[in-house]
Amino acid sequence: MSDQGILVVVSGFSGAGKGTLIKTMLEKHHNYALSISATTRAPREGEEDGREYFFVSRDKFRQMIEEEQLIEYAQYVNNYYGTPRQYVFQQMADGRDVVLEIEIQGALKIKERFPEALLVFVMPPSADELKRRLVGRGTESLEIIDKRLHRAAEEAAGITSYDYILINDNMEQCVEEMHQLIQMQHKRVSGNLDFIEQMKSELKKI
Amino acid sequence: MSDQGILVVVSGFSGAGKGTLIKTMLEKHHNYALSISATTRAPREGEEDGREYFFVSRDKFRQMIEEEQLIEYAQYVNNYYGTPRQYVFQQMADGRDVVLEIEIQGALKIKERFPEALLVFVMPPSADELKRRLVGRGTESLEIIDKRLHRAAEEAAGITSYDYILINDNMEQCVEEMHQLIQMQHKRVSGNLDFIEQMKSELKKI
Repeated sequence: MSDQGILVVVSGFSGAGKGTLIKTMLEKHHNYALSISATTRAPREGEEDGREYFFVSRDKFRQMIEEEQLIEYAQYVNNYYGTPRQYVFQQMADGRDVVLEIEIQGALKIKERFPEALLVFVMPPSADELKRRLVGRGTESLEIIDKRLHRAAEEAAGITSYDYILINDNMEQCVEEMHQLIQMQHKRVSGNLDFIEQMKSELKKI
Repeated sequence: MSDQGILVVVSGFSGAGKGTLIKTMLEKHHNYALSISATTRAPREGEEDGREYFFVSRDKFRQMIEEEQLIEYAQYVNNYYGTPRQYVFQQMADGRDVVLEIEIQGALKIKERFPEALLVFVMPPSADELKRRLVGRGTESLEIIDKRLHRAAEEAAGITSYDYILINDNMEQCVEEMHQLIQMQHKRVSGNLDFIEQMKSELKKI
């Protein structure tokens, strides 16, 4: 089968649990690489450069855009976020499946430029459950929670641009589903044209 | 997730082991239904009407075509083969994934009429291995084996019209891969538009 890694975009509502899902999948299964975004926003407490994000100045970010070092970038509020090209391509060439946890704007740009990318949207089993989880965190004001739910309603309009949805009801199960979904993409005809060509020419010679 | 069954077309070279794969998958996993083709060819020894095929006269087959009782049909040598519509649609409506083991001609017609169908092509690990398996059966003359290999070379031209390839190297593993591949199709966005719409409207109300 194909030795080339798959480019996987994972999006989902805030509170759908996509961060934990991806983290758990990378702990349990090898052969994945997590893309780290570059951002112009300031690091929050506990965040480390090169772990959560590459923290860069606005000038540096503009330079990265100009030099085409980013495969996608988008602006949220007053900050830029982007996916550095070199790491993604290197990991894929090494045969690792690269996971990008990005928002819908960026996801659609990825799909446009790389139609073979796999776009996955993680959903809660219901809107009520999403609210319960956000409230249950106990870390955010009701105002912030309302904002997140409002944003989820907006983001939902974009789900039909994704390839697959995963419902995060049981976390362990959802991790395995995401893993299987990605692994199955290695079997796509479009990613195995060399193998098919080889089989054709072998069959002609036999 | 979607309650509607998936329409799965499985093709593969003679000797690739697709028949055994499908049989084993249906024994190990529930929720599948195997479509039985109608044919005008005479039953071979041991074949039973309604088990291997529905054996029908040429007149009856023509009538089935005219009455649009077949979702696809094709001619091989002097016989007709076709897939009866009613069984397939009934099983899918009942939530079962329906497996069609058909040749490439029929597979392409299915894809044209039902773009959501999943087309899987089962391949041996190599052309040499295919030959070894055909010879190893010990049931066919070298002339027939040569014919099968020649036909495989012709069929190989159509593989790129399929969605996925599965390499049948280890049978048990290949059965699980086929099962996972089919199950993952239930998570396609295009098959879950109702759930997505429901989530959208719930989020607006919350």
